[in-house]
Amino acid sequence: MSAQQQPGAPPNPVQIFSTIQGYQRAFALKAAVDLDLFTAIAKGSRTAAEIAKNCNAAERGVRILSDALVVMGFLLKSGNSYSLTPDTAFFLDSRSPAYLGLAFNFLLHPSQLAHFEHLGTAVRKGGTPDEQGNLAPDDPIWIEFAKGMAPMMIPAAQAMAGLLAGELGSRPSAKILDIAASHGLFGITVAQRLPKAHIYALDWANVLEVAKENAGKQGLAERYHLLPGSAFEVDYGTGFDAILITNLLHHFEPSENEKMLKKAHAALNPGGQVIILEFVPNDDRVSPPVPAMFSLTMLGSTPKGDAYTLAEYAAMCRNAGLETPRLVPLDPMPQSLVVARKPF
Amino acid sequence: MSAQQQPGAPPNPVQIFSTIQGYQRAFALKAAVDLDLFTAIAKGSRTAAEIAKNCNAAERGVRILSDALVVMGFLLKSGNSYSLTPDTAFFLDSRSPAYLGLAFNFLLHPSQLAHFEHLGTAVRKGGTPDEQGNLAPDDPIWIEFAKGMAPMMIPAAQAMAGLLAGELGSRPSAKILDIAASHGLFGITVAQRLPKAHIYALDWANVLEVAKENAGKQGLAERYHLLPGSAFEVDYGTGFDAILITNLLHHFEPSENEKMLKKAHAALNPGGQVIILEFVPNDDRVSPPVPAMFSLTMLGSTPKGDAYTLAEYAAMCRNAGLETPRLVPLDPMPQSLVVARKPF
Repeated sequence: MSAQQQPGAPPNPVQIFSTIQGYQRAFALKAAVDLDLFTAIAKGSRTAAEIAKNCNAAERGVRILSDALVVMGFLLKSGNSYSLTPDTAFFLDSRSPAYLGLAFNFLLHPSQLAHFEHLGTAVRKGGTPDEQGNLAPDDPIWIEFAKGMAPMMIPAAQAMAGLLAGELGSRPSAKILDIAASHGLFGITVAQRLPKAHIYALDWANVLEVAKENAGKQGLAERYHLLPGSAFEVDYGTGFDAILITNLLHHFEPSENEKMLKKAHAALNPGGQVIILEFVPNDDRVSPPVPAMFSLTMLGSTPKGDAYTLAEYAAMCRNAGLETPRLVPLDPMPQSLVVARKPF
Repeated sequence: MSAQQQPGAPPNPVQIFSTIQGYQRAFALKAAVDLDLFTAIAKGSRTAAEIAKNCNAAERGVRILSDALVVMGFLLKSGNSYSLTPDTAFFLDSRSPAYLGLAFNFLLHPSQLAHFEHLGTAVRKGGTPDEQGNLAPDDPIWIEFAKGMAPMMIPAAQAMAGLLAGELGSRPSAKILDIAASHGLFGITVAQRLPKAHIYALDWANVLEVAKENAGKQGLAERYHLLPGSAFEVDYGTGFDAILITNLLHHFEPSENEKMLKKAHAALNPGGQVIILEFVPNDDRVSPPVPAMFSLTMLGSTPKGDAYTLAEYAAMCRNAGLETPRLVPLDPMPQSLVVARKPF
């Protein structure tokens, strides 16, 4: 993503030009997914003519798109024959359980583009000029998130479930609150590792329909409970052994997050823990690249959200009465867990 | 731009995610230019608070944008202090003669974005679904090109002028046709190196106003002549020693380009040469990255344009009667010259 200039090299506008053309690379990848091009290659199409036939597209269009995907690192080319990389075979073949193509409906949603076309205004104001960005109740963009983003979250969900299995696996029961449940993957993965656990999934009512359906498919309906509404307003109940807060706190300012963490504290049993999934940049705020850049995503699309450092999350936790906050990296994934505990 | 996966590495969605977020990096750079942020730093602002004050923006917005620009390689950060890279000082300080910020009005023009939001349709059809893309007479986007893109063309213009000075410098006069003159930089630079040369600039009438103004500023009005209209339709006249065809042939299919090159052949003196400025990928069509990716830009925005290889340009030249076609690289710039000659 970053390419530092060589000392003494003559001025060169190529990095500027390529960055500005970045929107073309984004839409090239989306076009390939819309055409199901990666699946056509996975099924055996090799040349532009063969792929075009399978994708019901023009050979010329497929040739140009496929060459661009080679330059971008998403296809390999030998002579006139294209093949998948290991990553595209895993994530972009639409028959793969890890298929990420639906995530593009969220990541390239027209409202996301619209926010960024006016990023200068957000910089002037210090946040999106929309009153709520994408944070209004039942905003349909979160349906797209729920339907598309689960595959990107598998490693994080497994890490969470592993943490909780170590802690709660020997107990006769467990009660887990999954805040911003979305697709439900986090709670579902925990429920699969903890066969006695009950999951309470909180999200907008329209989004919970997706989580409920996914939980049902995994045979978890009896242990899966719904808490529709805003995480700031819904009564969580009490007696939780753990509370998951995933991909949520980055949308809000620290004082709001402390309110939510105080609600979590009140709902936890003594010794229970909060597990936060987030993009957590280093204190320099410019590394690692993906968590650091996520701050810009929040500037563009929320009034006051940010990618907070561990020190900032630790302060929010402590101000809410949650102790020993610590970072659990999910390397090589760009997100991390922040874990803190309600004292005994 | 490309990042090949390590053999044996576990699947990782980060490259897919970062590519899709490429539109955010494009608009981040544009927002910084719109705020004149690079100039504020060049003038001495260092911290987010200082830059924000100078740019009339929120400190929080400037902090987040500036950190993103560090990640992207366009700023340096030390503690809380930001500074320019050599490239951003040269190209993005709005007081610089090489200022590229106005180019973004062309490169991120709403019509370019609209083309790419529907790239899948262009792949299916083999070209933009718009009847003419941006190629209709007097399309105002070419005013943006003319006003913004000249600084990116300086090395190419100097290379052309150098070629022609070596060939024509000793003659008492010279007559140069500059097709798709745009900002006029190519003809103007040639006229400055050849003080007896007359330049005939061809472009849409609205665009020629920009070229004429730029030529006038350089004191070249008496040697600068206008040929308004389409390069396929306007009578070029005869007796030219050289014909420049810059950033134009990529918009059309080879048979159309041959028509234009035949017109050029007819307008040239024996021994005269055509100098074509283009993105010329290697025969593999996937290297070097920038010329190879340019084919996608043409797929998205024209009915039948492409980034042609040297072999393809050579065939078009020969079919038009132009001989000894050869490539003149402009390394490290991503474009090249293709030069061919009318036989004596």
